[in-house]
Amino acid sequence: MTAPPTPRLRVLVVGAGFGGLTLVRALRHAPVDVALLDQHNHHLFTPLLYQVATALLDPSEIAHPVRAILRGQRNAHFRLGRLTAVHVAEHRVDTTAGPLGYDRLVLATGSTNNFFGSPGIEEHAFGLKDLGDALALRNHVLASFERAAASGDARERRRLLTIAVAGAGPTGVECSGAFRELAALVLQRDFRDSGFAEVDVELLEAAPQLLGTFAPSLQRAAVRTLQRKRVAVHLSTGVRDITDAGVVLQNGETLPAATVVWTAGVRASPTGELLGVTLGHDGRVPVDQWLRVTGATHVYAIGDLAEVRGPGGPHPMLAPVAIQQAQHVARQLDAEVRGGATVVPFRYRDKGTMATIGRNSAIAQIGRLRLHGWLGWLTWLFVHLVQIIGFRSRVVVMINWAWDYFLRDRPVRLIASAKRRDDEPEI
Amino acid sequence: MTAPPTPRLRVLVVGAGFGGLTLVRALRHAPVDVALLDQHNHHLFTPLLYQVATALLDPSEIAHPVRAILRGQRNAHFRLGRLTAVHVAEHRVDTTAGPLGYDRLVLATGSTNNFFGSPGIEEHAFGLKDLGDALALRNHVLASFERAAASGDARERRRLLTIAVAGAGPTGVECSGAFRELAALVLQRDFRDSGFAEVDVELLEAAPQLLGTFAPSLQRAAVRTLQRKRVAVHLSTGVRDITDAGVVLQNGETLPAATVVWTAGVRASPTGELLGVTLGHDGRVPVDQWLRVTGATHVYAIGDLAEVRGPGGPHPMLAPVAIQQAQHVARQLDAEVRGGATVVPFRYRDKGTMATIGRNSAIAQIGRLRLHGWLGWLTWLFVHLVQIIGFRSRVVVMINWAWDYFLRDRPVRLIASAKRRDDEPEI
Repeated sequence: MTAPPTPRLRVLVVGAGFGGLTLVRALRHAPVDVALLDQHNHHLFTPLLYQVATALLDPSEIAHPVRAILRGQRNAHFRLGRLTAVHVAEHRVDTTAGPLGYDRLVLATGSTNNFFGSPGIEEHAFGLKDLGDALALRNHVLASFERAAASGDARERRRLLTIAVAGAGPTGVECSGAFRELAALVLQRDFRDSGFAEVDVELLEAAPQLLGTFAPSLQRAAVRTLQRKRVAVHLSTGVRDITDAGVVLQNGETLPAATVVWTAGVRASPTGELLGVTLGHDGRVPVDQWLRVTGATHVYAIGDLAEVRGPGGPHPMLAPVAIQQAQHVARQLDAEVRGGATVVPFRYRDKGTMATIGRNSAIAQIGRLRLHGWLGWLTWLFVHLVQIIGFRSRVVVMINWAWDYFLRDRPVRLIASAKRRDDEPEI
Repeated sequence: MTAPPTPRLRVLVVGAGFGGLTLVRALRHAPVDVALLDQHNHHLFTPLLYQVATALLDPSEIAHPVRAILRGQRNAHFRLGRLTAVHVAEHRVDTTAGPLGYDRLVLATGSTNNFFGSPGIEEHAFGLKDLGDALALRNHVLASFERAAASGDARERRRLLTIAVAGAGPTGVECSGAFRELAALVLQRDFRDSGFAEVDVELLEAAPQLLGTFAPSLQRAAVRTLQRKRVAVHLSTGVRDITDAGVVLQNGETLPAATVVWTAGVRASPTGELLGVTLGHDGRVPVDQWLRVTGATHVYAIGDLAEVRGPGGPHPMLAPVAIQQAQHVARQLDAEVRGGATVVPFRYRDKGTMATIGRNSAIAQIGRLRLHGWLGWLTWLFVHLVQIIGFRSRVVVMINWAWDYFLRDRPVRLIASAKRRDDEPEI
């Protein structure tokens, strides 16, 4: 006679980004049941999102259906939906796809655009956080070029052909370079009959330097590369507001621009507000050294959403932080159900940061190493390949992305965007 | 001393479908200036649109930017916009991108979904005429599967997993087969944890037979193939209305279905209404044997929009008709400006029709030849390849599609669909 089986620990992971997906995959051999909730049906390879916005990649090349990723994982299942309430005491959440119970809850909902409460910025600027953002930006830029070709007013044409990028972090820098390349390589030939000379890309940064987290020598190299690509770099140039006419700068001047890309601020996703805890900087959820939410039993937060209190924290909002935190939580949960050793506090190991500035040019900062230009770009390629291979043992799908990216051989099963229908229920 | 140059004939082509684009390309060596207007920035390879709707192809694999196609053609330029008025007497049109003058106007605006004036059908059914349609349908079907996975109500799950296809012409038949393949090959593995058995595809046809233009032996072969793919074929089954609950059939029964694809009717695009002429069947514009619009000087209509009066006409709404008519108009215009021979009346040469019913199965009717099954599919492939090669001398881009389709090596510069923004001006 055997004892009735012990119910397995139910782990609910919210968010299928780098953190959430790494966690789910890392638990694939653990004796737990994992539910993964996300409001999109795909995981997004966000480092290349700007390439969708600049018409270089198809959505399906950077987005992969979550169900395809989890196909081989017997202890995991996916739910498409949005978190609407967390009942911490009852170990239960409400979602747009119905209620879900849990024994352990891991919030990995990432970050969102921060428009700093400005209605003008929120209404006019294009964020760059998900596929809908990127496709809207691509469509808008291409439509602005078409309008410029049809316009007889030189000043209006100039406005339509100006793209302002607010915020010169990695996304802003990559985006600026990519838009100039789109204009130089492709659009000048497409629009030769329209006789318009140039697409202006104006990169606006409030701080006195761009790429704040990089070494000054790399910052200077990035400025040189951007200028060679004819991106106009404006440092110490904050954005006060955005109107129909263009960008209102802190000095009161208005830069006429039909397109404004907003990469000047992100904040934690609003999920934290459902927890009833006092939120940290940029709406992040305070967690202890074991990534447990302060004051909420059995609830973890990882990635951009989490603000680690204590030595080493808080950590920057970067994919490697989310991935390392996911691995840490997975080890804790695994140790817990197997009765293993206690787990040491989380400690982030910075393996370096990189940013591409378009074709054949990147900057990289790995420990004490500083690389830029073509060498930086080769390093960027190499490190990404190494990361992909290293990642493979944990997330099989990364190899599929490489496959997809180089051979472009994949079916498309994405819920992205389409003709709007008013009777479509909300997800 | 030379005489001042004679102003070149201005030809305005409206619509960048098979007809319009063939015409523009055919005029590339003619001493005329060609303007091409379309409300989309891309030409759409409509025969494969159902493959976007069934998540097999990316939009960019069947849509090609018009500007890229016309890049090498010095005497042509493109305008993105919609026709809003035709002033025949003044040789001028109004468009959303401003007014345009012309010496010769060719309308090639194609056809649109015909919901037969039923508000219920128009509101609930998914048409399949452009990328927005196809992406909306894809998103809706995938979201319905997700809702089914989250639903505890067996009856509701069955409704969510039922796709009704109204109209068993080539599009309806191809679509039905492709949805069953999507379900059988892909989704059953993706949703294995949800325990839902099957996706029902119900093909509804008002007539007593499907594929009305094909020979009875091929119709029977198509029914057998569809049944083997487990598509439920309902002949003599007309659709009266569509409600939230599903499809209301002519016999009063309701078939619960969350997704209804409408391929049961198309009509000419409403462009004809701008001409002030009495329209023909399905809103088509009456034209004479030289494709000139009855009563409108220097205005031609070709393709789905045109109803040829006289011997041989009207012609079916098929791409080969549009292409042949475009070539005919191009010859006329070329003869006119060069002072060449008079052109004979248009005569359509039917080179055969084909329809695929999914992977490795198609029917083909070429003259007296009747083919089906795998042989039909090979013929379908072969004839498409031959058509592509034959088409190449006229439309260079067709080879690009083959390249794109097999190697999937292309950048994406499409205005398709994205996060909705309320401040976006209308195209």
